Amino acid sequence: MINFKEAQKIIFNNIELSSLEERDILQCNDKVLGENIYSKDNLPPFNKSAMDGYAIKSEYTESVSNENITEFKIKNTIKAGEYCTEILEHGEVYKIMTGAPVPNYADSVIEIEKVIVENNKIYINEKVKKDKNIIKLGEELRIGDLALKKGSVIRPSEIGLLASLGYKKVKVHKSPVVALIITGDELVDIDSKLSNGKIRNCNEYTLISLIEKIGAKVVSFGIVCDDKNILREKINLSLKESDIVITSGGVSVGDYDFIEEILGDIGADIKFNKVAIKPGKPVTFATYKKKLFFGLPGNPLSVINTFEEFVKPAIKKIMGKNNFSNEEFNVVLADNFKSKVGRRDFVYVDLKKENEVYYAHKIGSQSSNQLVTISKANGIVIIPEDVEDVYVGEIFNGRFIFK
Amino acid sequence: MINFKEAQKIIFNNIELSSLEERDILQCNDKVLGENIYSKDNLPPFNKSAMDGYAIKSEYTESVSNENITEFKIKNTIKAGEYCTEILEHGEVYKIMTGAPVPNYADSVIEIEKVIVENNKIYINEKVKKDKNIIKLGEELRIGDLALKKGSVIRPSEIGLLASLGYKKVKVHKSPVVALIITGDELVDIDSKLSNGKIRNCNEYTLISLIEKIGAKVVSFGIVCDDKNILREKINLSLKESDIVITSGGVSVGDYDFIEEILGDIGADIKFNKVAIKPGKPVTFATYKKKLFFGLPGNPLSVINTFEEFVKPAIKKIMGKNNFSNEEFNVVLADNFKSKVGRRDFVYVDLKKENEVYYAHKIGSQSSNQLVTISKANGIVIIPEDVEDVYVGEIFNGRFIFK
Repeated sequence: MINFKEAQKIIFNNIELSSLEERDILQCNDKVLGENIYSKDNLPPFNKSAMDGYAIKSEYTESVSNENITEFKIKNTIKAGEYCTEILEHGEVYKIMTGAPVPNYADSVIEIEKVIVENNKIYINEKVKKDKNIIKLGEELRIGDLALKKGSVIRPSEIGLLASLGYKKVKVHKSPVVALIITGDELVDIDSKLSNGKIRNCNEYTLISLIEKIGAKVVSFGIVCDDKNILREKINLSLKESDIVITSGGVSVGDYDFIEEILGDIGADIKFNKVAIKPGKPVTFATYKKKLFFGLPGNPLSVINTFEEFVKPAIKKIMGKNNFSNEEFNVVLADNFKSKVGRRDFVYVDLKKENEVYYAHKIGSQSSNQLVTISKANGIVIIPEDVEDVYVGEIFNGRFIFK
Repeated sequence: MINFKEAQKIIFNNIELSSLEERDILQCNDKVLGENIYSKDNLPPFNKSAMDGYAIKSEYTESVSNENITEFKIKNTIKAGEYCTEILEHGEVYKIMTGAPVPNYADSVIEIEKVIVENNKIYINEKVKKDKNIIKLGEELRIGDLALKKGSVIRPSEIGLLASLGYKKVKVHKSPVVALIITGDELVDIDSKLSNGKIRNCNEYTLISLIEKIGAKVVSFGIVCDDKNILREKINLSLKESDIVITSGGVSVGDYDFIEEILGDIGADIKFNKVAIKPGKPVTFATYKKKLFFGLPGNPLSVINTFEEFVKPAIKKIMGKNNFSNEEFNVVLADNFKSKVGRRDFVYVDLKKENEVYYAHKIGSQSSNQLVTISKANGIVIIPEDVEDVYVGEIFNGRFIFK
């Protein structure tokens, strides 16, 4: 049995960055940019007024003071979107609106609040500094500047920046298509009444929402019964129609756990079939041509844990991302928790902050079937392999889940 | 001019929780549950084997020891999904698969790894404890138990839990419809070449992605020119077709900033039109009948900041959420930053962690037009109203952006 770090490393070593596709920028939120974006314009493209006020040539105000209040004639008004090429003479100003281009003959904007206006004149009582309240041409970006680097994660701010630079579409890394196969003769559809020995298929729903949440596409094959031939056929089909196949169930040591056998039959390369973690020990990872195969356990909490720890980082890496999980931070235990030497325990807890310190509170059974437990959890505490039972006050790494 | 806290309070006081709608659980990720969910079944619905192993009656193993290795006959195999009602006699076990129901006559499961199997018999060399490796009927939930509380935020784990309880649809709080109006005669479409005095319409794109990111719906009216009649007509129409109207631009003191005048004309109740913050001072909030109106500034960084600080919390509260922003934490300044007494500064920075402490690094101009700055930022530092310029080593609250 390999340990957690080894398992993650094996997965990462088998990942190739996805190819690029061109997408409308509004479809790019949370995608990774696949090209450098250079500015085709100066930003702003002209000297822009940062204020509603009066555009003036600063040297014409040199003699102005409280003792020498001076009048200037308002020659014209420049609205945002207009462009003025008229000459500005001594004793003249333009009224100018926020966002409007400052005409060449002016080099400063006086705020509207700082002048007295009468008839068509303004009166000012202090010198004006050059460049005041002007956002200079190219101050943000100049033609040819690198505006956004290949590999950047696109957020609403980047979408806005791309729009302002005239990019309607950009190249981003494709999201993988993930196929789902849910195994188990005990499973019935969620709108079925439960008869003897049956439980409802919840893992399909959990997995679909986990996959969609990180922006990948799902093709679900639904419940497949524990029949080796049928299962082999579905796995073959799913490998054709997707980049990643996830199964849930069928990876234990039971007589009807066919996943590994089938992977062997079809010539997949099984990289590991057990990892020293809890929950989620019986997790299989294989590759088949360039496709990835994750055989997750059948217990609901194990499914979530193995998805979050192995599948999610894989999908994110394929999509070009570098941060695979939420950031880890120090967490102080507010309760005792059980743990065994030799495995990494992911303990689902309620993280509460007090005086800038996070405390991990017990919320219920860590039994791997317990969705009720995780529904009360907002985070995990990670108990490393070399540690046994842990006690109140001890400090371990933790992180938030599902963010 | 009111301060930030007052502004937020005024907005919150004018918010009503949205009504409920029934949605398929797969459409409920990140929505807020509008009803209590009670379990209609026991979970698990039977005593379930947690292992692949052998179901046995523990009292039949009382005399078993290393000195008294005992054989038991394998009576039958119980697969997951099957149900066995046969009687188990002394000297008999059932082979049982993970997830299969433990028959009534057995009360324990021995792991497959702990026995020696020969022909149709197993040999065991230690006593078996009652209830070992059995997940008991109703251990997770009993019929009638409250499984999920009204007001819970639905995550993939809750979607799985709802599925396992047979809920295909649940009632959640509706997402508001948000109408967008982008004003400014200086704006051209993003695929246009820039001519004199013009800039591209980026705010529409930023706002659409900000709104969709938090799960609300957008109806965009696009660019509307600075013509009071046309703008009034669009605002009237947008108020009819949405729950919240957002405009960008037109809320300054310029001659063509019509928003406030129009709000007055149509009888909207203007609650404030300026908040002591930077960026984003000229921000208007009004109500009209039960609709909310946010008049945001036109500068790209101001748009993002006022959306994040005022509009996003409002939308989240309408949808039934309690956490309106990312959590704040202590941040140590790694650079000096400018700030003015009397306003709250939101400084866009790069937050980097060293030895469990976050440091805020300067990334560029905080000028309100700068999307380039925010594209380098992962967080903000909040400089309160009573503080002037701040210096390296000082500690303020900060938080991550866009998470």
